[in-house]
Amino acid sequence: MRELWRLERVENVVRKAVRELTYNPPLKELPLGEGLGKICGENYFSRIDLPPNPKATMDGYAVRSLDCTGATHVNPITLRLLEGVVRPGEKPSVTLGPNTCIAIETGGFLPENADAVVKVEDTTLLNGGFVEIHKPVARYENISLPGEELKKGDPILRKGDIIHPWHLAALEASGFDEVKVLDLSALVICTGDEFLNSSTFPPFTRQIVRGWLAEKGFLRIELTLVPDDLERIRDEVRRGVNDHTLVIVCGGSSRGSRDLVPKAVDSLSPSLRIRGVAIQPGKTTTLCVIGGKPVLSISGLPVAALSSMELLLAPLIEKWLHVKYPPKPRVKAILTRRLTVKRGVKGFARVKVYRKNGETYAEPLMVGGSGAIRSLILGNGIVVIPEDLEGYDEGDEVEVELYGPIQENLS
Amino acid sequence: MRELWRLERVENVVRKAVRELTYNPPLKELPLGEGLGKICGENYFSRIDLPPNPKATMDGYAVRSLDCTGATHVNPITLRLLEGVVRPGEKPSVTLGPNTCIAIETGGFLPENADAVVKVEDTTLLNGGFVEIHKPVARYENISLPGEELKKGDPILRKGDIIHPWHLAALEASGFDEVKVLDLSALVICTGDEFLNSSTFPPFTRQIVRGWLAEKGFLRIELTLVPDDLERIRDEVRRGVNDHTLVIVCGGSSRGSRDLVPKAVDSLSPSLRIRGVAIQPGKTTTLCVIGGKPVLSISGLPVAALSSMELLLAPLIEKWLHVKYPPKPRVKAILTRRLTVKRGVKGFARVKVYRKNGETYAEPLMVGGSGAIRSLILGNGIVVIPEDLEGYDEGDEVEVELYGPIQENLS
Repeated sequence: MRELWRLERVENVVRKAVRELTYNPPLKELPLGEGLGKICGENYFSRIDLPPNPKATMDGYAVRSLDCTGATHVNPITLRLLEGVVRPGEKPSVTLGPNTCIAIETGGFLPENADAVVKVEDTTLLNGGFVEIHKPVARYENISLPGEELKKGDPILRKGDIIHPWHLAALEASGFDEVKVLDLSALVICTGDEFLNSSTFPPFTRQIVRGWLAEKGFLRIELTLVPDDLERIRDEVRRGVNDHTLVIVCGGSSRGSRDLVPKAVDSLSPSLRIRGVAIQPGKTTTLCVIGGKPVLSISGLPVAALSSMELLLAPLIEKWLHVKYPPKPRVKAILTRRLTVKRGVKGFARVKVYRKNGETYAEPLMVGGSGAIRSLILGNGIVVIPEDLEGYDEGDEVEVELYGPIQENLS
Repeated sequence: MRELWRLERVENVVRKAVRELTYNPPLKELPLGEGLGKICGENYFSRIDLPPNPKATMDGYAVRSLDCTGATHVNPITLRLLEGVVRPGEKPSVTLGPNTCIAIETGGFLPENADAVVKVEDTTLLNGGFVEIHKPVARYENISLPGEELKKGDPILRKGDIIHPWHLAALEASGFDEVKVLDLSALVICTGDEFLNSSTFPPFTRQIVRGWLAEKGFLRIELTLVPDDLERIRDEVRRGVNDHTLVIVCGGSSRGSRDLVPKAVDSLSPSLRIRGVAIQPGKTTTLCVIGGKPVLSISGLPVAALSSMELLLAPLIEKWLHVKYPPKPRVKAILTRRLTVKRGVKGFARVKVYRKNGETYAEPLMVGGSGAIRSLILGNGIVVIPEDLEGYDEGDEVEVELYGPIQENLS
């Protein structure tokens, strides 16, 4: 009657699953602005040199540096001023002869033979088309050399990188209008007869699942709701495997659906089936692979669901799709109370981090178990307890992943 | 001829500006899923208790705990089993009489008079409608009390909070379909005759500005391009002040437009005008307030533009709109080279953080000055140098704001 769950460690689950996850998501071309925060699907290299020509980084006069050798305030060197002003982005057609110069604005390209810019502050404009130079200038001084800001062939983005604003800028500079990203999508199936009854709550954990996936670069997230019905669950999982990158079944922590979801998934001939993961909360998490894609069955309770995604799904996506998610904010803090978990299980504990008298403390928020969405709202950080520890004692220094601002307690 | 820029410190600029920023952005109701990462515009409190009734957190039998006192494996206590199974989200109509129990699944609500759940593992089901209890159970054991997961009146979100997935879940549980967010919008005006010439680059720094604003919770970001023409710039700034929360003029670092942008802004009678901010790069940043809204003029060079937004605009938005942006990932690292900035100026230095032999190092990337988008792409972190320091020496430990994964160098 009682099923023994052998809890597999996260690293084993990930290792086994990655071998079976043969599906390769397609790429999607997005306009640059929409690529922000998504996962790059291709290696991009600069097609251009930035600047394309030596460029003034100061307002002043483009000169041949040798002409200015020995210039001082007392003994300035006088250069003949060519007509016109080189404006930003312009390349003058003139060639600079000996002892001549031309006015140039920041961003203007140097004429042929010029190799430096004398700042306007170090000059005096004379009547009759001459300029006095009061200071010598080194070769390449106050100029940006071709390719210095971005060189042709420089890597801009690699497949698996999260796209930041400067990547988009470099792509636009290189003439790209679009960026290819991993076209990740998920079907999130919430199960439970109770949710079809309008007098109870909606399956609100779906907001955590959807938000988490959106933050991880998923482009499309479809939510669906099915009753505790084997065929209906199986049909939705099958549809999800056909149409999406990933299927998450959320709920089914009741005995009835605990039978239904595995049965439904089993009937679709998974190539891998791991039931029970050594995480807490979230130990009833089930991971299957069907058609080379992951089908994850997680708790309908909000904290357990988040724990499954943070501790299992994130490293799984990283290994499977070679995604490099950016680092999380972390802070060291002193535990105000003991924090324990079963040995052999990875713990996901909510804490509230605050500062008092110059020290940083983390107060465990164990209120209400795995359903307590309150702990996520009251808290601002997570302590992950590794499998080889039973936890931490009061007064221990722990590392907290921060998701909200640290509370400053005066005094 | 030479204009002296008095560089104002960021904290002074922010303090002066906040007094003049009288504009209060309107709120916009978004469907829950679209609220993610946006800035909450209202205080939200839970309208419900979660769970609404005592709820089973285990599969088993709902009992009166007193009835089970003294139960052991050898001397079990036998209870009469009522008909039916309490399913998740259901509240049975029966009242539990003495020495009776009812089967209940995780998530089911306890019947009247029941005050605990005995786990199914601690029972034996007998023929004829009886259950043997092998273990005593404490009052409230294996149940979640009303309001334990979320209590009516609990704060969910406060005005100025960044919206996380669990906030959306708590709102949905409370019956909200939408969330009110600050309706922030920006007009980003790129100036420069050179950009109207199709043979040069587009003003690609706009991608950094747009991406940065999107990451900071702006709902609408309009990009526009104007020539170096006083009237055109003025008209666009005026339109931006009318239609948007914020105007950013990007570019105008050339002498010509350096005159035009301030003239255009001055002609619109700003109530505050600060020209020159003590940051590097980005010291030519100008902040004006027109109609109670900020008009920021920043460099067209990518790193200088980012520096102005990170060092000035972010704290300005935080103070003005009481926004609480989440903490940034930070790491301590040893500088591999000297890093200097003018005293009295806040520095914005790009570094590459890597690990070697168990130590964490930060290598300054000073390549190519404020135009070097390359330094943002090659790097993964920023060192902010405070105004009262001239910088750091090689070997100093510095705090780095990380924006990309730390590179692991083997050996």
